Amino acid sequence: MCGIIGISHHKEAGKMAFLGLYGLQHRGEEAAGIVTYDGKDTHVLKRTGLAVDNFDEESIAKLKGHAAIAHTRYSTTGGSNIKNIQPIFVTHRKKPIAVAHNGNLTNTEELYARLEAAGSIFQTSMDSEIMVHLLARTTNGELKEWFSRMLAQLKGAYSVVFLYEDYVIGARDPQGFRPLCLGKLDEGYILASESCAFDLMKAKFVREVEPGEIVIIKGNHIESTFLPKIQEEGRAFCVFENVYFARPDSHIFDDNVYQVRKRLGAQLAKEHPMQADFVMGIPDSGNYAALGYAQELNLPFEIGMIRNHYIGRTFIQPTQFLRDFRVRVKLNPIREVLEGKKVVVVEDSIVRGTTSRNRIQEIRAAGAKEIHMRISCPPIVSPCFYGIDFPSTKELIAHNKTVKEIADYIKVDSLGYLSREGMLEVMKNKNGFCTACFTGKYPTPIPVNTDKLQLEKGHTVTP
Amino acid sequence: MCGIIGISHHKEAGKMAFLGLYGLQHRGEEAAGIVTYDGKDTHVLKRTGLAVDNFDEESIAKLKGHAAIAHTRYSTTGGSNIKNIQPIFVTHRKKPIAVAHNGNLTNTEELYARLEAAGSIFQTSMDSEIMVHLLARTTNGELKEWFSRMLAQLKGAYSVVFLYEDYVIGARDPQGFRPLCLGKLDEGYILASESCAFDLMKAKFVREVEPGEIVIIKGNHIESTFLPKIQEEGRAFCVFENVYFARPDSHIFDDNVYQVRKRLGAQLAKEHPMQADFVMGIPDSGNYAALGYAQELNLPFEIGMIRNHYIGRTFIQPTQFLRDFRVRVKLNPIREVLEGKKVVVVEDSIVRGTTSRNRIQEIRAAGAKEIHMRISCPPIVSPCFYGIDFPSTKELIAHNKTVKEIADYIKVDSLGYLSREGMLEVMKNKNGFCTACFTGKYPTPIPVNTDKLQLEKGHTVTP
Amino acid sequence: MCGIIGISHHKEAGKMAFLGLYGLQHRGEEAAGIVTYDGKDTHVLKRTGLAVDNFDEESIAKLKGHAAIAHTRYSTTGGSNIKNIQPIFVTHRKKPIAVAHNGNLTNTEELYARLEAAGSIFQTSMDSEIMVHLLARTTNGELKEWFSRMLAQLKGAYSVVFLYEDYVIGARDPQGFRPLCLGKLDEGYILASESCAFDLMKAKFVREVEPGEIVIIKGNHIESTFLPKIQEEGRAFCVFENVYFARPDSHIFDDNVYQVRKRLGAQLAKEHPMQADFVMGIPDSGNYAALGYAQELNLPFEIGMIRNHYIGRTFIQPTQFLRDFRVRVKLNPIREVLEGKKVVVVEDSIVRGTTSRNRIQEIRAAGAKEIHMRISCPPIVSPCFYGIDFPSTKELIAHNKTVKEIADYIKVDSLGYLSREGMLEVMKNKNGFCTACFTGKYPTPIPVNTDKLQLEKGHTVTP
Amino acid sequence: MCGIIGISHHKEAGKMAFLGLYGLQHRGEEAAGIVTYDGKDTHVLKRTGLAVDNFDEESIAKLKGHAAIAHTRYSTTGGSNIKNIQPIFVTHRKKPIAVAHNGNLTNTEELYARLEAAGSIFQTSMDSEIMVHLLARTTNGELKEWFSRMLAQLKGAYSVVFLYEDYVIGARDPQGFRPLCLGKLDEGYILASESCAFDLMKAKFVREVEPGEIVIIKGNHIESTFLPKIQEEGRAFCVFENVYFARPDSHIFDDNVYQVRKRLGAQLAKEHPMQADFVMGIPDSGNYAALGYAQELNLPFEIGMIRNHYIGRTFIQPTQFLRDFRVRVKLNPIREVLEGKKVVVVEDSIVRGTTSRNRIQEIRAAGAKEIHMRISCPPIVSPCFYGIDFPSTKELIAHNKTVKEIADYIKVDSLGYLSREGMLEVMKNKNGFCTACFTGKYPTPIPVNTDKLQLEKGHTVTP
Repeated sequence: MCGIIGISHHKEAGKMAFLGLYGLQHRGEEAAGIVTYDGKDTHVLKRTGLAVDNFDEESIAKLKGHAAIAHTRYSTTGGSNIKNIQPIFVTHRKKPIAVAHNGNLTNTEELYARLEAAGSIFQTSMDSEIMVHLLARTTNGELKEWFSRMLAQLKGAYSVVFLYEDYVIGARDPQGFRPLCLGKLDEGYILASESCAFDLMKAKFVREVEPGEIVIIKGNHIESTFLPKIQEEGRAFCVFENVYFARPDSHIFDDNVYQVRKRLGAQLAKEHPMQADFVMGIPDSGNYAALGYAQELNLPFEIGMIRNHYIGRTFIQPTQFLRDFRVRVKLNPIREVLEGKKVVVVEDSIVRGTTSRNRIQEIRAAGAKEIHMRISCPPIVSPCFYGIDFPSTKELIAHNKTVKEIADYIKVDSLGYLSREGMLEVMKNKNGFCTACFTGKYPTPIPVNTDKLQLEKGHTVTP
Repeated sequence: MCGIIGISHHKEAGKMAFLGLYGLQHRGEEAAGIVTYDGKDTHVLKRTGLAVDNFDEESIAKLKGHAAIAHTRYSTTGGSNIKNIQPIFVTHRKKPIAVAHNGNLTNTEELYARLEAAGSIFQTSMDSEIMVHLLARTTNGELKEWFSRMLAQLKGAYSVVFLYEDYVIGARDPQGFRPLCLGKLDEGYILASESCAFDLMKAKFVREVEPGEIVIIKGNHIESTFLPKIQEEGRAFCVFENVYFARPDSHIFDDNVYQVRKRLGAQLAKEHPMQADFVMGIPDSGNYAALGYAQELNLPFEIGMIRNHYIGRTFIQPTQFLRDFRVRVKLNPIREVLEGKKVVVVEDSIVRGTTSRNRIQEIRAAGAKEIHMRISCPPIVSPCFYGIDFPSTKELIAHNKTVKEIADYIKVDSLGYLSREGMLEVMKNKNGFCTACFTGKYPTPIPVNTDKLQLEKGHTVTP
Repeated sequence: MCGIIGISHHKEAGKMAFLGLYGLQHRGEEAAGIVTYDGKDTHVLKRTGLAVDNFDEESIAKLKGHAAIAHTRYSTTGGSNIKNIQPIFVTHRKKPIAVAHNGNLTNTEELYARLEAAGSIFQTSMDSEIMVHLLARTTNGELKEWFSRMLAQLKGAYSVVFLYEDYVIGARDPQGFRPLCLGKLDEGYILASESCAFDLMKAKFVREVEPGEIVIIKGNHIESTFLPKIQEEGRAFCVFENVYFARPDSHIFDDNVYQVRKRLGAQLAKEHPMQADFVMGIPDSGNYAALGYAQELNLPFEIGMIRNHYIGRTFIQPTQFLRDFRVRVKLNPIREVLEGKKVVVVEDSIVRGTTSRNRIQEIRAAGAKEIHMRISCPPIVSPCFYGIDFPSTKELIAHNKTVKEIADYIKVDSLGYLSREGMLEVMKNKNGFCTACFTGKYPTPIPVNTDKLQLEKGHTVTP
Repeated sequence: MCGIIGISHHKEAGKMAFLGLYGLQHRGEEAAGIVTYDGKDTHVLKRTGLAVDNFDEESIAKLKGHAAIAHTRYSTTGGSNIKNIQPIFVTHRKKPIAVAHNGNLTNTEELYARLEAAGSIFQTSMDSEIMVHLLARTTNGELKEWFSRMLAQLKGAYSVVFLYEDYVIGARDPQGFRPLCLGKLDEGYILASESCAFDLMKAKFVREVEPGEIVIIKGNHIESTFLPKIQEEGRAFCVFENVYFARPDSHIFDDNVYQVRKRLGAQLAKEHPMQADFVMGIPDSGNYAALGYAQELNLPFEIGMIRNHYIGRTFIQPTQFLRDFRVRVKLNPIREVLEGKKVVVVEDSIVRGTTSRNRIQEIRAAGAKEIHMRISCPPIVSPCFYGIDFPSTKELIAHNKTVKEIADYIKVDSLGYLSREGMLEVMKNKNGFCTACFTGKYPTPIPVNTDKLQLEKGHTVTP
């Protein structure tokens, strides 16, 4: 996962892009970057770690210009390699091109082979770099044709923003895997992965960029062109954005995430009802479905665990000693609330199962008598090739165990997962979602060689 | 406010003290320190800022020893002056004495004058240093007499831990302003301002240190002595710890803070009921009373604002530009939840009124039709001389405005504060609380010269 | 100016390369980098500032591999832009290529235009990047043909080392502008700009790489190939390396620099003799010629100014206040030595004249009665297009003033420059030197557009 | 060794004190501090490491005030303990007192015992803190009596500056172990350990503070008082300041250090003459005596080793790997100068012998045929209790070996030390020097317990 931002026209475009990163920080904690253009020069700022911690005012102030794009990066691949921080920025024929990309391409093997045979040199191990090489090898007549021709060669998931001199160009792949929202900011436009970024800077939500749409923005002027349409059944919105990844205050895929999650919780209550002393969520992400579950069954909702806001930076490189400690420091159960109680605990999803097992153990140690766990999505059984960084299948607990076995493993009195049908039932675009992680049925051909890091031959310690 | 910790016997006492600071970090974000004793040498680690961010593993590993005390500091007085970080550590007659103090003394003028006339040199501007000078000038016969004699000279609020060679000594002033809890950790004991610190390291809560009690611990041996008793009506537990300051998962003043806050919310619902589409709290501190309020009136509880966990370090020194932004970045209201709704918004307290005003403005801008605010304590009208860092009276909105005027200022459709009687009604020690900040009636003589920093004549840039 | 290093076969090639940078640090203080190859992966470390200060042991330890190249960078162009730190490292057809370059190419305009038209994207603003693009577009049959064909397209100055998998390849342009030395280190070979780098790691000087020579080294195997020969009169060794730039303990251009400088001083004494109380040099660079001058005339040599070794890092970004102070802090004249004396002051060269003027002022203020300045090279009148970073001609004092006017400006009683003929007279390759900075007669066509930074359209603040 | 500075009246006293530290940096590389007073507040800046590297402009700018004292600290005792950085600053009876001290007291045992019995608490492990405690316990009538009475209780070596509100007070012990110079700076006065500090800020040397003198300066007013006089034979100027420690451009003990060292070299030539191809010094400290030696015998002087100015910060914590490398990186011998030659190598002193052995080995490896070493002081056989940080006697090579054995150990063809008589012969105050390190005869009673760190019971990791 990653978050991307584009700002077409603001006297402090760089600062605005930085503020936007606050709203997208949850989409990528590994690194972040901003590129601005001031009509003459391009300015770049990149940092590993959290943008909100590691970007300093002085450096931000140097990001002069009225147009900007930004990126926040999630993937742990490439580690602290500063070369792999986006936006990618190159100068081609003395004109600057920058790109920030969310998603993963699926035909990279073929594209790399073709480009390298023709003499291209790749500076990063990010598939996103392919786009600038394709641009450099395509006659650049009119902008919309140039970018359309380039994008038409890509397969897979991409929500992407480009900065080409004064132009900010946004695009979303025809299947629409990743969200991309369009807003109005002062005299120009703003693009962002999620609409919550708009609220921070008082930008106005306009609409989502459509699947297959390319928006070309210069200052206050906006124009759209479209890649060849595919049928609506071909759409593949990532349902996991709704289940877990996106922020609850965002509006994506035509719906508000908080409302979707409450409806998932209510549907979960219908499928797996349980009378209990109260319902609690695993904070914060489980709280929304827990509220829906509690309201559906008219059960009390309680905050059974306190989230500690001081989890500290020391955890960046945890030792064994601290790793054990980390679960407890994040969430502390309240004995006086839990003691002797029968509780429903709602979680958004289970990936490896180890965290859930730890949480349940803590809740039981604090005195809970019966624990009934409810999950607001189906079991996750397959990896994602479109940008969600799930572990390998052998680490996915539901790939290897039945629901009953999982319940035994995490030691709950009962366990209920939401069904795929129930999940889609409460969505606005019932037929337009990719649910491959729950089914193993992928909406695109997937590459034979799935090693995402095929190009990466080195390890850069810089700077 | 500050948080203090003492560990009497653990092979990694320094690490344990550090882990304890995670649980007390909310009591002090300005600076922190740990002192350990290994039977021969004393080891000190101090840092400005958050302990959980700024203490590194390598430095913590150097804190050898089986006994430790620690401190986390809230007060903004003294700024980044590393001299004013506790624990204070001195060597007296070749024996190490360290002290960590939570609270404020009220007879410092007189004590400073007496000590300086006799040739004492003060290294810090913290009143806590007085204690070590008094110790240095008192015949040290038996430990319990030595410390009793010293503490008997103090007036005001103190929960305090000392490290004197192998001994960890904890004490609480006879009125009991600040909490201090006793726990069992492996083969020794642990002292901490709040019990939530015990959970993190799987220590067991034993009891609270009593007002006027001095506990002298060496390894696994514990012994108590008492300062002259005062009548139970003379007790002065800080009610604001329950209202706002302490963590909801702590057990202090004979009660669980989460349960107290829910009861405050329920009492508030009785005093100021309001039918509405739903009840929400200002996250996170307002959520507990909001739950109590909603349950009492059988109204839905919703999460109307999303708390952003990435508020960033840049805010430590905010510019005007970022200061405006800060309110929004912390809490973002959800339009789809609020639009067209009549809502009850519960907050724990109002100090200056500016933050509440900003929050209400955001909630209304997100579409709320009617906003009824409820506060789970009475109006704050007077400063605290016992350790809570309220602003001056001229900044306390309730000192200067009526409830009606406050409602107008923060622009709510109605405003209701909990009464003092209602607040005490739900407490376990109804008659034992200090409520001076709500009444101006102080349980001790207060100093004529209330300038807390009378000694501070310098500005230290170190290190 | 820059310094380059290549190490073909050492179990700690990265560490050895780092040690080598100690010996070449004077050739570049702006930034440095090391690239190693371990048979499978490539490792990169880059830092701005002094390598000897800013490279840390932990990062160096990660530079695994038995082959390495390194670079230290002088040019202030590109500022703190980490993109412009060498070695340049790219992956081409899954094989790593790295390059470190000393010198400047003179046909970059034409090469950029050709490559960009064919779709190349440039990541840096360094002309050195051209080499890897040319390699990527050339059929790579046998290594020596591949590199020969690529190098044959370049014009200008280059001493260069490449790392291509296990191979370390060194080359020097046919005119031989910049030095490049070959040494033996344990079981492999070492290449370095100057031989002083060998001494540090007890490597043995073998010989210099010849002008137009390409050495292809793998482990212990070494093979040479040659670019088309040019006549000996076409050689263009940089005389300024001997006059000022190279270290006195280096052996370059078939001679020892210390001995050359003493001979320059002796020749200077013949051309501009002066009886005086004593001879002193401006430390440290002027001392060698001063010794030669004093011995030639049998005058006492004294150390009239003390060099302060603590000039501090604060000067990296000097304010006006400190800038005035900097001259004095570096060199302090000794009153007791200078008072009432007639002195000959020897300096290696005068560029802008401001520093010399300041020094002379200090010497006179310390009591010198007569000051006779002697310069061990001719007046500098023209810029260098081959790698020495002289200021623009309008700042070169000798471009704008006669010797008499310069003497007046720096306020000396007499001023004598060494003649071009005298300078070449004491050299071992009398006819093989480029003296363009003293004559304006360049040994290659020079580009019409002399702006070295034509590609640089951006400003990167990273990291 | 340490360096101290006082500035009585300058609008930027803090900046001036910082500039002065450039001139005294060689007297202490471990840590440094500045204290200023602005008529109302006192400002303190302390840093470990080199002042010239680690003090930043922003922090220096905060040092407001017209009076300042500063200190640079040499001793490795106490390590990175920020508590032990001087100046010591305390507030007594609401008035600030700061002190910076060079030297070591010899009656500390007795003074500590007396003060602690009376209730004093010590914050540091520096003997200098005793002075402020003595001041705090003495009636402070007139300043000159107050300070006289305090200083009269001290024994041992001290050159010291105090800041007491507007007053800058300087004092030197009656035997005058350490230098202290008085200068005129603008409208006020300046005190500094060595006169070279004056040159940097264009202050004018006035005179040295006399042994036993106390100068009390306020703004432009200066007044002297004296401790009880002792006979001139009782003087104990540190001869090692002249031999090695002080800067050659300083004027101390009534003489210029450069001239003294040349005379030591000339005297050495008389005592141990040797015909050779040339004379060289071990740079930089051996060069001055080498010049004197060469001139006396009319031999050529050469620079046989090149000093590398880039020795790097990595060496602060050297590993074994780098420790071996360090000798070579600092000084590189020039083969072309040394090969086949008979050379006299002059060094100022030999302490452990390991460094000399290494240097000689390098010189011989570079081809020298015969090496005759000459040392410009007598053999060092005893420790110093007055501030020079020699190693323990068992590490002093001359304590354990004869001159012949030392020559064998460092592998020279001959070795000659200057005699004590010869050394004193060329001094201006022949009878006023302490030569205890060469004789073991101490000019004061020395403490039985010579452990300088008796108070140090802790290890502080701060900050």
